[in-house]
Amino acid sequence: MFGVTILGNNSALPAYDRHPTAQIVTLNEQLFLIDCGEGTQMQMARYKIRRSKINHIFISHLHGDHYFGLVGLITSMGLLGRETDLHIYAPAALEEILHIQFKAADTQLPFKLHFHALTKEGIVIDHPKFSVECFSTTHRIPCYGFVIREKKAPRKLDKEKLLEYSIPSSFYDKLKMGEDYETKEGQIIKNEWVTILNKPALSYAFCADTSYNESLIEKVKNVSLLYHETTYLKDLTERAAARFHSTTEQAATIAAKANVYKLIIGHFSSKYESLDAFLDEARAIFSNTDLAIEGVSFEIE
Amino acid sequence: MFGVTILGNNSALPAYDRHPTAQIVTLNEQLFLIDCGEGTQMQMARYKIRRSKINHIFISHLHGDHYFGLVGLITSMGLLGRETDLHIYAPAALEEILHIQFKAADTQLPFKLHFHALTKEGIVIDHPKFSVECFSTTHRIPCYGFVIREKKAPRKLDKEKLLEYSIPSSFYDKLKMGEDYETKEGQIIKNEWVTILNKPALSYAFCADTSYNESLIEKVKNVSLLYHETTYLKDLTERAAARFHSTTEQAATIAAKANVYKLIIGHFSSKYESLDAFLDEARAIFSNTDLAIEGVSFEIE
Repeated sequence: MFGVTILGNNSALPAYDRHPTAQIVTLNEQLFLIDCGEGTQMQMARYKIRRSKINHIFISHLHGDHYFGLVGLITSMGLLGRETDLHIYAPAALEEILHIQFKAADTQLPFKLHFHALTKEGIVIDHPKFSVECFSTTHRIPCYGFVIREKKAPRKLDKEKLLEYSIPSSFYDKLKMGEDYETKEGQIIKNEWVTILNKPALSYAFCADTSYNESLIEKVKNVSLLYHETTYLKDLTERAAARFHSTTEQAATIAAKANVYKLIIGHFSSKYESLDAFLDEARAIFSNTDLAIEGVSFEIE
Repeated sequence: MFGVTILGNNSALPAYDRHPTAQIVTLNEQLFLIDCGEGTQMQMARYKIRRSKINHIFISHLHGDHYFGLVGLITSMGLLGRETDLHIYAPAALEEILHIQFKAADTQLPFKLHFHALTKEGIVIDHPKFSVECFSTTHRIPCYGFVIREKKAPRKLDKEKLLEYSIPSSFYDKLKMGEDYETKEGQIIKNEWVTILNKPALSYAFCADTSYNESLIEKVKNVSLLYHETTYLKDLTERAAARFHSTTEQAATIAAKANVYKLIIGHFSSKYESLDAFLDEARAIFSNTDLAIEGVSFEIE
C-alpha cells in the first residue's frame, strides 16, 4: 500500500472549509506527514488518521500555512503518552520555534524528538525499503519539495519454483537482483526460471510552494504521482510569479515534461470558491490530473 | 450590547468537534478575543466573527491550547491588509514566540502590534467606557484571568427635562454623576428631576485555567457573568487538583460564594463525550449555570 491522503489543500488564508497544507503518505505500515498547517490535528481526527503511526514529519518551509499546526500536534502526541521516537525534517529555524514553545508551557515530551535540519538537496532518509529525497523549490523563503521512492528488487521470487530447484534461502536476495544460481553439481539455474518480474518501484513527489521553474522537471522525472501547487488559474500568471507561486498551466507543464504518471493539484488561493476551472485548465495540458480534495486518498500506481 | 461568544470549550486535546479555548467578548462596537487555541481563526469563519473588529487580544497563559492559534490569526490579519493597531496582553514569553515565527516567514505585518506583557495583577485597560483587569489563577505555569467591566454613570439624562429646565450641556457630565444644578438665579434643580437611574454596569470574568482557590472569589465578586473552567466532574477532584484544574462542584461553589449572576462552564476534558453531567452537577450548587457550548452567544445581563 502506497498512497497519499490530503488533509489541507488551501493556500495561506483558510476559506470555504479548505485548510492549510498537510498530507499523509502511507507506505506499507508507515505514515509520513508532509507539512502541518494550523488545524492538521483536527483534520486527522476528521479523517481517522492514526497519529501514533506517524514517525517522520517533513516540513517544506516556514510559512505558517505549512507548519503552524505542528507544535499542537506534537504536544497532543505527548499528552497521549507517545513513547516512540519522532523525526522531523525541516528548515533549521523550526527547532528553536518548537523549543521556546515547549519551554514556555513547561512541556516535557515523553518521547524523543529528533530534529533534522534541511540545509541542502539530497537524500534525507535511506531505508532498505524506501528513500526520501529533498530538493529546493523557488519560493520567497527557502523551501523544499520531497520525493518518496519505494525500493524494490527487479525480480520477485516464485516460491514453488524455488522449492522445485532446492535453492537455499541464503541466495534469495541475489535472485531478486537477477542473478542466476549455480548448484553444487555445477548446473546453472537461470534466474527467469525461478523469479518473475517485480512491479516497478513507485514514487510520490510533493513540489511544495514554488514558482514555475524547469529545474524541477529533473527532480520529479518519471514519478508515479506528483503533487504540484496551483495557487492561481492561468490568467494570473504574473501574480503567481510575483508571489512565487504557480498556475494550473505551469503545474501541468511540469507534469508533462517530467513524464509523471499522474498529477494532483492544490494550494488553491482563497480567492477561488469553485475549483472547476483548475481541473479544466490543468487537464487541457496534462489529462491525468485530479484536484487534491481534502479527505481523498490517492493510491500511487 | 455586551456578550460573549464561545469559540472553543475543550481542554488540551481537541475531541468530539470541540476546540481549544477561545471566546469573543462583544462590548458595544468592540470585539475582544480571550485566548486563541489552534483553529480559532477557522472557528471565527464558522461563526461569522469579523476579525477586523478585534483590537485587543488577551492570552491567559502559555499552554498551547490557549494560544497556538494566535500566530496564524495575526498572520491572516496581515494577509488581509489590516492597518489598525492590534494590542496583545499576555505573559511576556509570547512576544519572542511570535517574533521568531514572523522572522522565519519573513512576515512584515502591515499594522502595528503592541505587546503588553502581563507581569502582575491589576488594570490592563482603563478606557472611559470600560476597564479590563487581570488576576492570577492557580495553575502549573503563570496564568491570568480577566474581568471586563462596563463603566456607567449612576444617572442617565432625561432629555425632555433638560430642555424644560434649560440646563447647559457643559453640566451634563456632572448631572450623570448625581449632582444638582444651580441656575444663575440661584434656583436649585434637583438631580432626580432631570435624570433617571441608569442600568447597573455589567461585567464579565474569565477565570482561565485554575485549581480551586477561594482567593478567586474576591476577584470575581458580583460579576454579571462568570466563565469558570470545569475540566472534570466532581468524582475526579483529586485528579483536578493534581493537574491544577477544577471540577463542576468547585466552579459552582466559586460562583455561589462570589455572588455572580450567572455561571458558564467549559474547558472540558477530552475523556467526556457527553456534557450532561457537567450541567447537572454544577446546577445542584449554583442553579443559574449553562454549558459554554461552541457557537453560543451569552448576553451579559
